[in-house]
Amino acid sequence: MIEQQTQKRKRRIVDDPPDSPTSVGWTEARTLRIIGTDETLKLEKGGEIGPVDVEYETYGELSPAKDNVVLICHALSGDAHAAGWDKHAEAAGRQFRMKHPGWWDTVIGPGKAIDTRKFFVICSNFLGSCYGTTGPSSINPRTGKPYALSFPVVTVSDWVKVQAILLDKLGIERVHCVIGGSLGGQQALEWALAYPQRVDRAIVFAAAHRLSTQGVAFNAVGRQAIMTDANFNQGNYYESEHPKNGLAVARMMAHITYLSEAGMHQKFGRRLRLENGSPSALGGEFEVESYLDYQGRSFVQRFDANSYLYITWAMNHYDAAHRWGGGDLVEACRRIQSKVLVCSFSTDWLYTPQQCRELAFAMCRAGKSANYVNVPSNYGHDSFLVETEPVSQLLRSFLAGGKR
Amino acid sequence: MIEQQTQKRKRRIVDDPPDSPTSVGWTEARTLRIIGTDETLKLEKGGEIGPVDVEYETYGELSPAKDNVVLICHALSGDAHAAGWDKHAEAAGRQFRMKHPGWWDTVIGPGKAIDTRKFFVICSNFLGSCYGTTGPSSINPRTGKPYALSFPVVTVSDWVKVQAILLDKLGIERVHCVIGGSLGGQQALEWALAYPQRVDRAIVFAAAHRLSTQGVAFNAVGRQAIMTDANFNQGNYYESEHPKNGLAVARMMAHITYLSEAGMHQKFGRRLRLENGSPSALGGEFEVESYLDYQGRSFVQRFDANSYLYITWAMNHYDAAHRWGGGDLVEACRRIQSKVLVCSFSTDWLYTPQQCRELAFAMCRAGKSANYVNVPSNYGHDSFLVETEPVSQLLRSFLAGGKR
Repeated sequence: MIEQQTQKRKRRIVDDPPDSPTSVGWTEARTLRIIGTDETLKLEKGGEIGPVDVEYETYGELSPAKDNVVLICHALSGDAHAAGWDKHAEAAGRQFRMKHPGWWDTVIGPGKAIDTRKFFVICSNFLGSCYGTTGPSSINPRTGKPYALSFPVVTVSDWVKVQAILLDKLGIERVHCVIGGSLGGQQALEWALAYPQRVDRAIVFAAAHRLSTQGVAFNAVGRQAIMTDANFNQGNYYESEHPKNGLAVARMMAHITYLSEAGMHQKFGRRLRLENGSPSALGGEFEVESYLDYQGRSFVQRFDANSYLYITWAMNHYDAAHRWGGGDLVEACRRIQSKVLVCSFSTDWLYTPQQCRELAFAMCRAGKSANYVNVPSNYGHDSFLVETEPVSQLLRSFLAGGKR
Repeated sequence: MIEQQTQKRKRRIVDDPPDSPTSVGWTEARTLRIIGTDETLKLEKGGEIGPVDVEYETYGELSPAKDNVVLICHALSGDAHAAGWDKHAEAAGRQFRMKHPGWWDTVIGPGKAIDTRKFFVICSNFLGSCYGTTGPSSINPRTGKPYALSFPVVTVSDWVKVQAILLDKLGIERVHCVIGGSLGGQQALEWALAYPQRVDRAIVFAAAHRLSTQGVAFNAVGRQAIMTDANFNQGNYYESEHPKNGLAVARMMAHITYLSEAGMHQKFGRRLRLENGSPSALGGEFEVESYLDYQGRSFVQRFDANSYLYITWAMNHYDAAHRWGGGDLVEACRRIQSKVLVCSFSTDWLYTPQQCRELAFAMCRAGKSANYVNVPSNYGHDSFLVETEPVSQLLRSFLAGGKR
């Protein structure tokens, strides 16, 4: 209770800046030390880490009964800044910083699908990332230097555990709904499995209980690009050139897996950017080439290569069936006590409709309340971020429905 | 005639070495200067190159009527060594060298689908490659140094033009059939379009009239990995470290596009290679990771990074509809005078069944004799190399059938 009041005092509602594209009231990002200097957090794979700071944002007001909490879980390159305008990161002059507005500002805000006049929305940055929560680029207080690869490996389960501790610190026992897409969807699933008694509803967008072999393979390529970058230096690059070329290649490749061929064809086709000048084997004539090049170059301005390695490691290794059902997904799903919505997108080939359906069907076979929706879209895996209308409809109806 | 006799003298049938996995008689690879020291070959995109040497192999005997020629076109990383055992490259101590036996030895040989007791089979290495035909790693006689990026850009059409000149030099006017898969399939198509009067039959495996946007995008990533490798040095690396890390990443990524998720799942699943030892963010625990790592590392031993750039450039830019039909594929197909077989593979997502079907349908709409077959397979794009039984059946029946 005291902690919550402290948080409330610290939270400051600020009007959007005049040029803001949104009309959402917003709260500054805050950092909370959830594991103290003399403590450590035990991690799933045997390591431990401490202290642990968690950066999080909240939108809306916690109800007196504390029954209006919506927990948002972000994906690979996301952060705690899910909605509104981020003055905090700008003011702090962060090395790694997302663009304003928040990454899911289209669905979170007053009057939006996740209505902040009704819900108290929390989004926290996960362990190992580079956006405020402790990660490989954080200073290890024992050495005074960044952890780099001395940071222990972390998992989706560890992320959820950290979120649970954060909720404890905020005095919140249950959540009305936990929601995420992609790696965020896997966190939502893990919440329903690891803390069934604390979750009333869970929404899993564009995620399955584990990554496909092809997904692991794509991650292997991106990871290799980083690790063989001449500047990688076994992760000890914080005081010199970062392995930006490798990270850019990793992002370019991953970006293709977030789109669909249909969407890329529609957006770029085989259009050429330059018709003049002599053609060169160095290429770059196609619009889609320069688009991807831009995606790679802008990503390295805002993301840490070591974090990319830790997060893709977690993405590769998450397997809900293995963790909770001895390899049997139906067995794992027996733990669930919440209502679950699993939503895939027709052209998503990173977490395919088939895989999402398999997850929902496993829940049904375990006798659970699972809904499955496949949204037609050309936007591939990114659909959960850009298909605002169908996603909003699903969010509204599922958030308004009764508990299990 | 004189040239042909010269070739015959030079050709030497040698028994397989005792440990050979094949029972195919084979001929040594030969190099023929098709463009002399004082000549140049005009190229599609405006450049020129000379002299031009072409490395090629032949299997079987040319009939007196010269009507039994089967021309084989290789794909991105292929070479002239399509069948049999390659002592030549071994003896020559080549910097870049394929493994024996030939890359399509499963279907070319005495009694095999492309029966060398009946057909005179020719396969030549294409311009810009690194396996004997003039390319960026060849010595420019004007400078005494490798061309590197001073090599002009070359196209699929240029490759076919070079093959046509080679056939001229060998005294061969018409081919019974031109056959290729992937980029080789695009050459087979280009043969039917550019030299309709010289081609009786054409077989296009796993190729479309152009690469998809997604395919261009994947190439962009691989190319970026090479070009941003610290050792790339604008292509001038022949006397120092080659950009092996970048080329390995490019190959790893491309390799994923040659397989299918179904095939990878079947072969590797999510099996772990190492269970012992502490997990590390550097990863490598999954079998599929070490498999791809091996693919990348072995590729850089046998391929030139500059050639990779030139060839993927050609792959990106080929568009038969644009070249021959002003953007209209049906219009382009009106040129065809040969019988054509287009064959796709059900899980190929680099040149999808849909794209292959589109090509065959365009031929039909142009009133041409086109057959289309979609072979069910889990092997993705690589199917044309590994689905020996259905591929052999198709080859046999199409080669035996009448002309158009």
